[in-house]
This record gives sequence, C-alpha cells and structure tokens, in this order.
Amino acid sequence: MTSFTPTPVTEAAACCAPLTRETLNAEQADDLARSLKALADPTRLRLISIVAASEGEEACVCDLTEPVGLGQSTVSHHLKILMDAGFLTRSKRGTWAYYRLVPGSLDSISRLLVTA
Amino acid sequence: MTSFTPTPVTEAAACCAPLTRETLNAEQADDLARSLKALADPTRLRLISIVAASEGEEACVCDLTEPVGLGQSTVSHHLKILMDAGFLTRSKRGTWAYYRLVPGSLDSISRLLVTA
Repeated sequence: MTSFTPTPVTEAAACCAPLTRETLNAEQADDLARSLKALADPTRLRLISIVAASEGEEACVCDLTEPVGLGQSTVSHHLKILMDAGFLTRSKRGTWAYYRLVPGSLDSISRLLVTA
Repeated sequence: MTSFTPTPVTEAAACCAPLTRETLNAEQADDLARSLKALADPTRLRLISIVAASEGEEACVCDLTEPVGLGQSTVSHHLKILMDAGFLTRSKRGTWAYYRLVPGSLDSISRLLVTA
C-alpha cells in the first residue's frame, strides 16, 4: 500500500476565527481562497460527496467515474486537485487507487465561514 | 434609499444535508459550486470580512478600497459578484453605496461543508 501525503489544509483554515469575526489579512485570504477554489467545482463537490458517503468513507477511483459521467483521467485530475488542497488522501492497493476524506478538512473551512 | 434585491442564496445551500451525509446530485453541486466560486477569491473574502467586522455589519464602498489596496471600480466589481451570489446587499444613501452581509448566507454554506 502506497500512501501519498497531501498538502495540509491551509494554515488559515487550521488556525483562525471565522472570517466575519476578524478581518482577514492578505495571506489568510489567499490561503482560504485557494481551498475554496479547490472545492468550487461541481464535479469535485460530487466526488468528495461520493467518497464521504461511501462505506468506510473511502472509494475506489473505479467507482467514481460512472456516477459523475466522466472518464478516469478527468476524474483523476479532479481528485488530484482535491488531494493537493488537503481534502483527500490516496492509497494504492493492487490495481486501484482508493480515496479517503481527510478528517477535519471540510470542517476547518466550514468553521471559517460560520458567523454565529 | 435604493435597495437592490440579491439573488437568493442557492437552493442547495438553503435546503440540504451536509455534502458528506448525502451524495450531491448534479444540480445541487452546480449551485454550491457557484456560491463557492463567488467566495473563492482573496479580495472578495477580505471584502466580506471587512463588511462583517464593520460597525453595524455595514460598510461604505468608500471605506473598502483602501484596506484591499484596489480602485473603486475593481472593488465594485467584486462586490457585485458577492451581491449576485446572495452574500451582500447594497443600499444607496446620498453619494455612497453601503454593503451589508445577508444574514445566514455564509452559515448556509458552512452547514453544507460540516461533516460532524
């Protein structure tokens, strides 16, 4: 089994008060924008959603192409963007790559956007 | 005082379970991606953050240009994207336009991303 270490979820997401409580500085805004850009695509949102809803919160790339109606190379491209942004990890077992949601990665973004 | 009605925050954001609890369908993913795209820009994140942190959660466009270091036409362009996505409302009083965070608009996105 080969594991790939993703880029950790942004410092801004990890550290900070909601964006409505303190004014974001330029660096924090850059970090958060980068994370949001990785999510701001319908295919990537569906992929994350399918992975998270799968048994064991893990899905084989072989099970991801059909639900989103795209070829494996396009799906792999989107999955790489989500890995690079720290939302998914990938492990290879046998022929297939399996993707798993990084615990807390979506929550850290969610916490930044909440106002209450 | 002239008020502009923003496009309401997306149906997906208003209605649905977190994206990790149910698999998003294509329409929900499109809606959420559109909202996230409006947010996924460092300048727009800083503008929302400054508006929300301002007294009365309202800011004059005249107070927004200096903190982000951009001219008024660029700032107005970003503010329009945030209004069109339903995150800000705008009202005009005298010479200036004032921007206000739409209550619940960020929270509805936050709720979709939370996994717990």
